[in-house]
Amino acid sequence: MATRMKLKLKTVFVLYFMVSLLGLVYALMQLGQRCDCTEHDMPKDRTISRLRGELHRFQEQIRKSEATKQPQKQPAKPTIFVITPTYARLVQKAELTRLSHTFLHVPQLHWIVVEDSPHKTPLVTDLLVKSGLTYTHLHMPTAKDRKLQEGDPSWLKPRGVEQRNEGLRWLREDRRAQPGGDNQQGVVYFADDDNTYSLQIFEEMRTTERVSVWPVGLVGGMKYERPVVEGGKVVRFHTGWRPSRPFPMDMAGFAVSLKLVLANPESCFDGDAPMGFLESSFLQGLVTMDELEPKADNCSKVLVWHTRTEKPKMKREEALQAQGLGSDRAVEV
Amino acid sequence: MATRMKLKLKTVFVLYFMVSLLGLVYALMQLGQRCDCTEHDMPKDRTISRLRGELHRFQEQIRKSEATKQPQKQPAKPTIFVITPTYARLVQKAELTRLSHTFLHVPQLHWIVVEDSPHKTPLVTDLLVKSGLTYTHLHMPTAKDRKLQEGDPSWLKPRGVEQRNEGLRWLREDRRAQPGGDNQQGVVYFADDDNTYSLQIFEEMRTTERVSVWPVGLVGGMKYERPVVEGGKVVRFHTGWRPSRPFPMDMAGFAVSLKLVLANPESCFDGDAPMGFLESSFLQGLVTMDELEPKADNCSKVLVWHTRTEKPKMKREEALQAQGLGSDRAVEV
Repeated sequence: MATRMKLKLKTVFVLYFMVSLLGLVYALMQLGQRCDCTEHDMPKDRTISRLRGELHRFQEQIRKSEATKQPQKQPAKPTIFVITPTYARLVQKAELTRLSHTFLHVPQLHWIVVEDSPHKTPLVTDLLVKSGLTYTHLHMPTAKDRKLQEGDPSWLKPRGVEQRNEGLRWLREDRRAQPGGDNQQGVVYFADDDNTYSLQIFEEMRTTERVSVWPVGLVGGMKYERPVVEGGKVVRFHTGWRPSRPFPMDMAGFAVSLKLVLANPESCFDGDAPMGFLESSFLQGLVTMDELEPKADNCSKVLVWHTRTEKPKMKREEALQAQGLGSDRAVEV
Repeated sequence: MATRMKLKLKTVFVLYFMVSLLGLVYALMQLGQRCDCTEHDMPKDRTISRLRGELHRFQEQIRKSEATKQPQKQPAKPTIFVITPTYARLVQKAELTRLSHTFLHVPQLHWIVVEDSPHKTPLVTDLLVKSGLTYTHLHMPTAKDRKLQEGDPSWLKPRGVEQRNEGLRWLREDRRAQPGGDNQQGVVYFADDDNTYSLQIFEEMRTTERVSVWPVGLVGGMKYERPVVEGGKVVRFHTGWRPSRPFPMDMAGFAVSLKLVLANPESCFDGDAPMGFLESSFLQGLVTMDELEPKADNCSKVLVWHTRTEKPKMKREEALQAQGLGSDRAVEV
């Protein structure tokens, strides 16, 4: 009786052992299989785009919340000092507005805005205060004999010369006043207020050792102008006009290390330089073609565009003003 | 002896039963968990999984930082659906680039980009994928007889009509397909790709009940056009041309609630409307002047500008192309 009981128990035990072993093996096999990711049914690009969007919003949220808390402890990226000359005109506020939206996405950017004006204007002052950017607001009127007159073609006299030089002057003085070992760390870029900048161009220029260069789109009557790179070196320039100029490049196509700017305290833009030689007048004393650092995938990518905004027509405004029905002058445009 | 044997076997059996049961339960729990799709070695899947991971870390970071502050219960903001018609031209990439930088600062924005093209172009596709925005990419070619010809003045035929209507069609269909009570929550805005938008205008329009309105700068030969508000109501329009039009406003000067768009499934833009009546053709069936909701401080602030970008001259490009020295066509501008 006891033996039979023992046998029965043994059988049950063995049976249970077999069944449970099979179950475990099956479960383990399932674990090893590839996932069934039902979410992947959604077009993947849309998912990626949605996630990127959400990520960006979180980053913004964190950036804002960190700004109110302790100072961020990021590995110190070199600051990009962007010098932007600007002058009063109908589209000024619009241009500076969209430019500020681009700069807001760039970490460690210090905007040096230099008004072509005998004083700081309320429009620019207010815009900078509200911009959320780190900035310095300067002004420097263009000498009368150098100023473009109404109706002059835009190429007759170079614009923004005194303003860029004032930006350089401030920067040199400010850096001297900043104690510490990393007061020479940084990059200087001259960004006019009507151009269009990708975000990538700022990361390209951030590693500038002396002078970095890249293509500029829609400039000089060309689809793009660019340095031509062979074996990692700039060997000539693709340009539609006088390629023999020392540096036949647009202002938007290069950045200079702060160190180099500080080591050459007299380097500046020459307002009397012949047409098309303004960039060369500044770069000539700083660098040779051989030393230029090609960025943007060996100058094969257009990451900045020389866009120009149309001057708005004011025909109807003038007609209404003649009848005393013009737009309210108190409304800032 | 036999009893002891029986007892021993029983103990072993029970022990084994317990252990294997625990193993099974654990294995089954593992099976029930969400898949970790990182093993998918396709680049897109990897990107998605990486983004999800980052998103999760950000969510954690925000949760922690919020936990240290007072609990922030943000009510779900209505999504702004921005419909942007766009067409291939030299400045297209530049325009869409800077526009995307503005939109990236706006929470809960869904960009509906409609190309005037028989197919989606690689340029726009790539730009959207990399933009970091939530978007929908559509295309709809303009009928030949409605298309502006080279040299036509820009006012001859309205541009973007079929594209805006395609955006509306997609939106209506998509909302029908989205179940849930808040699928009617949202605001629709028509944003051309060359205008300039402040960030504030999006927060102004977000509370649109039916149709909200505000001034537009640099439009219609005027410093600005705007609805004139008296006692909180729009009573007439400040415009330089035919103020008697039903809604003498620019496309950039109004937003419509999604609810109203869905409640009027036939409302769209009439490409055959006389010049200057395109906005009216859409709004007439939706709202009366009396019902318009003035924003931007009773329409006293200009928060959006009708900027236009110059068509770049390609004289030197053409001259060089004639010599076989033109810009590389493979380089995207």
